[in-house]
Amino acid sequence: MKRAYNFNAGPASLPESVLKKAEQEWLNYKGTGMNVMEMSHRSKPYEEIHQQAQNLLRKLLQIPDNYEVLFLQGGASLQFTMVPMNLMEEGKKGQYVLTGAWSEKALKEAKKIGHAEAIATGKDNQYREIPSVSSLKTLEDGAYLHITSNNTIFGTQWHETPKVSIPLVADMSSDILCRPIDVASYGLIYAGAQKNLGPSGVTVVIVRKDLLERSKDSLPTMLDYRTHAKNDSLYNTPPTMAIYLLKLVLEWADSLGGTAALEKINKEKAALLYNVIDDSDGFYKGHAEASSRSLMNVTFTLKNQELTEAFLAEAKERGFTGLNGHRSVGGCRASIYNAVPLEHVEVLAQFMKEFKSR
Amino acid sequence: MKRAYNFNAGPASLPESVLKKAEQEWLNYKGTGMNVMEMSHRSKPYEEIHQQAQNLLRKLLQIPDNYEVLFLQGGASLQFTMVPMNLMEEGKKGQYVLTGAWSEKALKEAKKIGHAEAIATGKDNQYREIPSVSSLKTLEDGAYLHITSNNTIFGTQWHETPKVSIPLVADMSSDILCRPIDVASYGLIYAGAQKNLGPSGVTVVIVRKDLLERSKDSLPTMLDYRTHAKNDSLYNTPPTMAIYLLKLVLEWADSLGGTAALEKINKEKAALLYNVIDDSDGFYKGHAEASSRSLMNVTFTLKNQELTEAFLAEAKERGFTGLNGHRSVGGCRASIYNAVPLEHVEVLAQFMKEFKSR
Repeated sequence: MKRAYNFNAGPASLPESVLKKAEQEWLNYKGTGMNVMEMSHRSKPYEEIHQQAQNLLRKLLQIPDNYEVLFLQGGASLQFTMVPMNLMEEGKKGQYVLTGAWSEKALKEAKKIGHAEAIATGKDNQYREIPSVSSLKTLEDGAYLHITSNNTIFGTQWHETPKVSIPLVADMSSDILCRPIDVASYGLIYAGAQKNLGPSGVTVVIVRKDLLERSKDSLPTMLDYRTHAKNDSLYNTPPTMAIYLLKLVLEWADSLGGTAALEKINKEKAALLYNVIDDSDGFYKGHAEASSRSLMNVTFTLKNQELTEAFLAEAKERGFTGLNGHRSVGGCRASIYNAVPLEHVEVLAQFMKEFKSR
Repeated sequence: MKRAYNFNAGPASLPESVLKKAEQEWLNYKGTGMNVMEMSHRSKPYEEIHQQAQNLLRKLLQIPDNYEVLFLQGGASLQFTMVPMNLMEEGKKGQYVLTGAWSEKALKEAKKIGHAEAIATGKDNQYREIPSVSSLKTLEDGAYLHITSNNTIFGTQWHETPKVSIPLVADMSSDILCRPIDVASYGLIYAGAQKNLGPSGVTVVIVRKDLLERSKDSLPTMLDYRTHAKNDSLYNTPPTMAIYLLKLVLEWADSLGGTAALEKINKEKAALLYNVIDDSDGFYKGHAEASSRSLMNVTFTLKNQELTEAFLAEAKERGFTGLNGHRSVGGCRASIYNAVPLEHVEVLAQFMKEFKSR
C-alpha cells in the first residue's frame, strides 16, 4: 500500500502504526468478539480505553491534578459557545485576541452569550503576525482572555504564552501536543481532535477545577462543563470510536518520547519548508511574519497567481494532497501536523526546489 | 473469528458485513492512500460519502423533499436542548408525553429553555404502557408535542402515531429504521446513531423545512438548525468516520430490502423472545404491557431476584453480552436492534428455555 502525501489541514494524516493497530483489533477487540464501537460505554473494556486516553493526555501534557480532562462533542465551534456560557461573569467581559478567522468566530459567538470584546487584532496586517505578549492590555473587567494558539488559515502561532491575571483560555485545536506547554498558565484549553489528536468527532477540554464554580444551574445540562466533569465524560454516550483512536494516537505520541520529542521533529519538518521559502529569492513568499510562523501550517504563495496555480496542479499530479490554501484566502498551505512523516515533508521540500528550478 | 452474542442497549452490534467492508477500505479508501478519517471533509471522496448517507436515509425512510436531513453531534441528549431552543414559540408550551427516563430528561431540559409541560405520563404504572393515542389532549397553546418512540429502559414502543395539529417531535434514537414510518406525520425526528444506525458520535435530525423559521438569530450558531441545514451539515468538521459507518449501515439496510424487510425480521426476532416469556408460566415476567411491547428492547425479570441474578451470571458465562437491565431498574433486557442476527436471538431463546427447564 502506498500512503498518500497527506498535507490536509484537518481532518488530517494519522500515524500509520495507529491505523494498523486499529485494523488488527477491528473485528475482535481483545477477545471480546466485538469492535470497540459495539461495546457498551459502561463496559469494562471501553471504560479502560476511556481512562487510558485521559491518563495519557495527563501524562503527555503534564496536566496538574486541579484540572479536569473532558471528552466532548461538537468541535471547537461548540466550545466557542460553551466557553462564554460557562466562564462569563456578571459585569465582566470575555476578552479576545483576534489572530484569524477562528478567533473572529469565537468572539462572534461569545457576543451572543454576553459581553465580549477584542482587545487586540492582527486583521489590519492580514493576520500575518501574533500580537506581542507585552502589548496585550487585559482590562480589569475581563472574565477571561481568549486566544487561538495556532491559526491554520494564516499559518501563525503563538510562541510565548501571555501572562495575565484573568484565566487564559486557548483554542489549541491545531497545535495541541505539537510541543510542551505549561498547562498551569491556562484556565481552560480546548481542541478538536482532528488535527493532532485523532479523528474528528471528539473535542478535548482541559479546565481548571475552580473555574467550574462559574457555571450556573440554568445552563442546559449538556452545555454545562460540570455535567461532564462529574460524570467523567460519560453522562451520555460518548463518541467511543473517536476516543479509542485518540487513545491510540496518544500511545503513539508517548512512544516517540512525548511533546519534547514531537517538538524537535516538528521544528525539523517546519524548517525544511521555511528554508525552501527563505532561500527561494522571492519565488515562494511566506504569508506569516517569521517571528509568528506556525510549526503546523506553512502558508505561502508563488510570485503570481498563475505560478501558484501551476504549482498546485503539478503537486496534485505528483500525489500531494491538501496543499491548497483555505478557500477564504487562496494560495498554498502545507499542514504538517504530528502525524505527517518527516520523509513526506522532505519529498515536498524537494518538489518545491525542483519546481522553482524549472 | 467468533462474533459475540451482543445484546447491548447501545452502543450496540453492527452488521458484520459493514465491519468487514470498513476493514477492507481501512488503509486505502478507494485508492486515495488514506483512511476516510484522514480526508478533508471538503474533499470529493468524503463529500460523496456524506451525500450518499443522506440520500440513503431519504430513500429508506421515504423522507419528503420538504424535510432537511442533518448530521449533528452531541447525541439525543443535546437534542433535548436544541429542540426547544429552535421550536419554542412565544406564549406557547412544549408538550411532552412521558414514557420513560429519556422523555423525563427531554422535558427537564425543555423547561430550562422555556415553558414546557407533561400532558401524559406512564410513570404511575412504572412506564409499562404507552398512553393511548386517543387519550392525548394536546392543548391550544402547544408549540409542539414531543414523544420518545421507543423506551430502551422499560422496553415499550409507540405502535400508533399520534395525529395532532401541532408539530410532532419524536426521539427515535432506539428504533429509527426498525420499521417503515410516515415522516410526513412528524415535524422533527432525531436519533443518536448508536443503536440502529451506526456508531455513537453522530445524531440524525430530520426536520420539516418550514419549522426552521422558528429559530431566532440570537441562537448560538452551532445550536441553530438553520446553520446545519444551510451548510449541508458541513458548517464545521463533521464526525466523518461515524458518518462513513452510518453510510455503510444504510447500504446494508437497503440491501436487505429496506424498512419493510427489517420490520419483518424484527417482528420475528421479538416474537422468539416474547413467546418464551409468555409460554413460561410466569417463570419469566415481561415488564411491558403486551400492547406496548418494544421490537427493540425485550425487558423481563425472573420469578425472584436470586433467579434473575443466576440467569444473568449463567448467560454471561455462555457468552451473552449486555443482558443486564439498565442500572436504574435492574432485571434483564435483550436489545435486539436491526444488526443483531436472528440466529443470535434464537440462541438466546433456546438458552432461556433451557434455563427454565432446569
